[in-house]
Amino acid sequence: MLNPLTNDFVEKLSAMLPDKALRLATPADVEEPRGRYIGLGTHVATPSTVEEVSKIITACNAARIGVIPFGGGTGLVGGQVAPQGPLPLILSLERMTQIRATYPQENVLIAEAGAILANVQSAAQAVDRLFPLSLASEGSCRIGGNLATNAGGLNVLRYGNTRDLCLGLEVVLPSGQIWNGLTRLRKDNTGFDLRNLMIGSEGALGVITAAALKLYPRPAENGTGVFVVEDPTAALALLNLAQTIAPSEVSAFELIHKTGLEFLSEKLPDVRQPFENKPEWMVLIDLGTARGRDPDALLERLFEEGHAAGLISDGAIAQNEAQRRQFWEVRERIPQANKAIGSIVSHDVSLPLGSIAAFVTEGLARLAKLGDMRVNCFGHLGDGNLHFNAFPARGRDRHEYDAIRDDIQRCVHDLVSEMGGSISAEHGIGRLKAKDLAHYGDPGKLAAMRAIKTALDPNGIMNPGAVIGSLNV
Amino acid sequence: MLNPLTNDFVEKLSAMLPDKALRLATPADVEEPRGRYIGLGTHVATPSTVEEVSKIITACNAARIGVIPFGGGTGLVGGQVAPQGPLPLILSLERMTQIRATYPQENVLIAEAGAILANVQSAAQAVDRLFPLSLASEGSCRIGGNLATNAGGLNVLRYGNTRDLCLGLEVVLPSGQIWNGLTRLRKDNTGFDLRNLMIGSEGALGVITAAALKLYPRPAENGTGVFVVEDPTAALALLNLAQTIAPSEVSAFELIHKTGLEFLSEKLPDVRQPFENKPEWMVLIDLGTARGRDPDALLERLFEEGHAAGLISDGAIAQNEAQRRQFWEVRERIPQANKAIGSIVSHDVSLPLGSIAAFVTEGLARLAKLGDMRVNCFGHLGDGNLHFNAFPARGRDRHEYDAIRDDIQRCVHDLVSEMGGSISAEHGIGRLKAKDLAHYGDPGKLAAMRAIKTALDPNGIMNPGAVIGSLNV
Repeated sequence: MLNPLTNDFVEKLSAMLPDKALRLATPADVEEPRGRYIGLGTHVATPSTVEEVSKIITACNAARIGVIPFGGGTGLVGGQVAPQGPLPLILSLERMTQIRATYPQENVLIAEAGAILANVQSAAQAVDRLFPLSLASEGSCRIGGNLATNAGGLNVLRYGNTRDLCLGLEVVLPSGQIWNGLTRLRKDNTGFDLRNLMIGSEGALGVITAAALKLYPRPAENGTGVFVVEDPTAALALLNLAQTIAPSEVSAFELIHKTGLEFLSEKLPDVRQPFENKPEWMVLIDLGTARGRDPDALLERLFEEGHAAGLISDGAIAQNEAQRRQFWEVRERIPQANKAIGSIVSHDVSLPLGSIAAFVTEGLARLAKLGDMRVNCFGHLGDGNLHFNAFPARGRDRHEYDAIRDDIQRCVHDLVSEMGGSISAEHGIGRLKAKDLAHYGDPGKLAAMRAIKTALDPNGIMNPGAVIGSLNV
Repeated sequence: MLNPLTNDFVEKLSAMLPDKALRLATPADVEEPRGRYIGLGTHVATPSTVEEVSKIITACNAARIGVIPFGGGTGLVGGQVAPQGPLPLILSLERMTQIRATYPQENVLIAEAGAILANVQSAAQAVDRLFPLSLASEGSCRIGGNLATNAGGLNVLRYGNTRDLCLGLEVVLPSGQIWNGLTRLRKDNTGFDLRNLMIGSEGALGVITAAALKLYPRPAENGTGVFVVEDPTAALALLNLAQTIAPSEVSAFELIHKTGLEFLSEKLPDVRQPFENKPEWMVLIDLGTARGRDPDALLERLFEEGHAAGLISDGAIAQNEAQRRQFWEVRERIPQANKAIGSIVSHDVSLPLGSIAAFVTEGLARLAKLGDMRVNCFGHLGDGNLHFNAFPARGRDRHEYDAIRDDIQRCVHDLVSEMGGSISAEHGIGRLKAKDLAHYGDPGKLAAMRAIKTALDPNGIMNPGAVIGSLNV
């Protein structure tokens, strides 16, 4: 059993840490973006070195006090807030924000876990390199949180998830021991892959304090096109075609449904839409090309070949950077429109690429049986990642659906599970989906996860309640 | 403590398995390529389904009998042979060789662990796709072994190590429980990353029985060039230049030292060398380009810009496929020439890219102090992976160096460790480097590895003695 944080313990911590390394929690420390959880009011430790983190974790482990690692607080599954249980300590990385070093010739950058993602991007840009991780909250999320949740975002198709962008880690293990795995190596086969085990473990196996990150050459030019497609099947065929015309240059391939465009018109009418008549389905394609490769010429070729193959009925290619921003705004502001409409329930699922079309058809049919609702289906088609979100019918309120909210979610997740998909493609498990993981997860994997958690964190102090629930409940 | 395999146990196994699922070990099952170890003569189980693997592991776990998973037997660190300890069972995947399915539109293929790598490549080619893993033993190594050792090879620079080519796994855990993680998903954030934990664990945490593998569009064209460079510093600068001219199209960037060219002349004079005067250093560059991109034009541009920048003094671009093969033969037959010369000791190390030049200079200087020897330094420069192998001076025999063999290895590994490198870049730990890992490994990582091993395999049955030594010794 965990013990609650006490004033005595806080004083003890305070005595072993420098000034300012402990403070009371503010609302920003205990609220999360979707407002589903309010964390317990408690103390926040704000260490500035890995040694301080080690001291804090060692003390918490000895006293069996829970620790909630905290990055930018932008997670969408409640991994960063503990609304119940014995009072934990919040461990915020907010003062570990240094870019420790950049190695442009090696395409490597070393950042502390508290560095804001946008600052990591800027540090890469300052040495004429690209750090490709990009997502809506990049102005406030921290790289440690991105790593802990294996964040996805807009460039996964080309550059991979966050785990694919990491070469090495510095981690404080639940015992308080420091693992210095901050290598810049592209190849290292010395033992079990602790790096990937820590990445995506959502703070349940240790605290990431720094990372060696991969950089890339900056594309010489970018081009963006929007194309009208008949359905997700045509969209997938178009993706395959794009990958033969510009392999390794397709950096985003986003699917957008008419519902999203309608939400934009309804709630954000200032967003300029690319087609006068809203198409049932459209895709947004972004290319980042090598020196001497004209992205617009490639997009034109894609349009011509896609049109000839019957995959595309209409399209537009951005003629300048302003228009490119305009096209992207359509995709990027859909979440904001969704929020303004007010979803009944949202889903972050992934499917095998070949099953997406069937999933959409079947998913819409099954949801229609549950009630009159609108579904906004959009997402990173190239990664098989859809946000399949249910909204009230026009004129109705989301709370009218409270009684069937869980049924809707179960319906979608059951279908995802039947089709070999994932109930959490890029947001993680956190607290929101811990029960779903227990329900849908493979028993062999769950058994292994529990064994690993118990082995590395026998007292269950790290982010108790997250991912696999609490060991001590 | 493990128990030895007994006739009683073999009979018990035999009764629960179909005919032909057990046989006596042949020399091929207990010898490894470098002849360092001879495994104990024992029985070999040859299951043909994951359920049979599960039965075998369950029985061995209950009886505390060691299991040596066996793929193609081509590993170079003794991971596949148990020369001592209680008699284990060899579990060969030789009958699980099916390509279960291909999904060309998804760029996914599902193979059983016993599929020969070359057959996986062919299955991909048959659906007009590329499975990029390529290494010297591809005609006999098996994909399960490639995964268990996270094999590297020739295309890592562009496509990553084996772990980067895997989407999902089917694994029998040490308890005998099956983990069905054979997903085709590009994004899946449901819990700890068991997939990467299994990949590279060298059979010490479970038996991989099948894998969902990533395919890629086949490059439209390939081009190969050989360029003379002053030293490794110039080679690295040239790599950076190549990546601005053809980002994501450089599939190999191999460094070759004069010693390797001399070994070829001495032992394999039929290999045609690209330069009349053997250069001190040369690089081989391979490009695989998109439709409409002429690789030779890109290589010419690279030569011109590299020459203008003072990085290249001479070069040649293959004019046809025969010449391409000829250039590649220089690189690919160096290991054979090495073998004919007879190394004192070989090293599979990686360094941060920016430290390679300093490593080579310092490494040669330190070895020169130990004795009169030749060093053949070659490898995958783009990955920071060097094979830095020591050979007897001309006219001397390798056995004259037996007394300083360990000193040479220690000298090289000490330097690698000082410079933040890895003592095993792509071959793994196996039995050969288990003591080195214990010596050079980060204490935090080693503690975590031991905890994980104990948690997943409390009886220590899986590949006892490999990677982290035996738990029971």
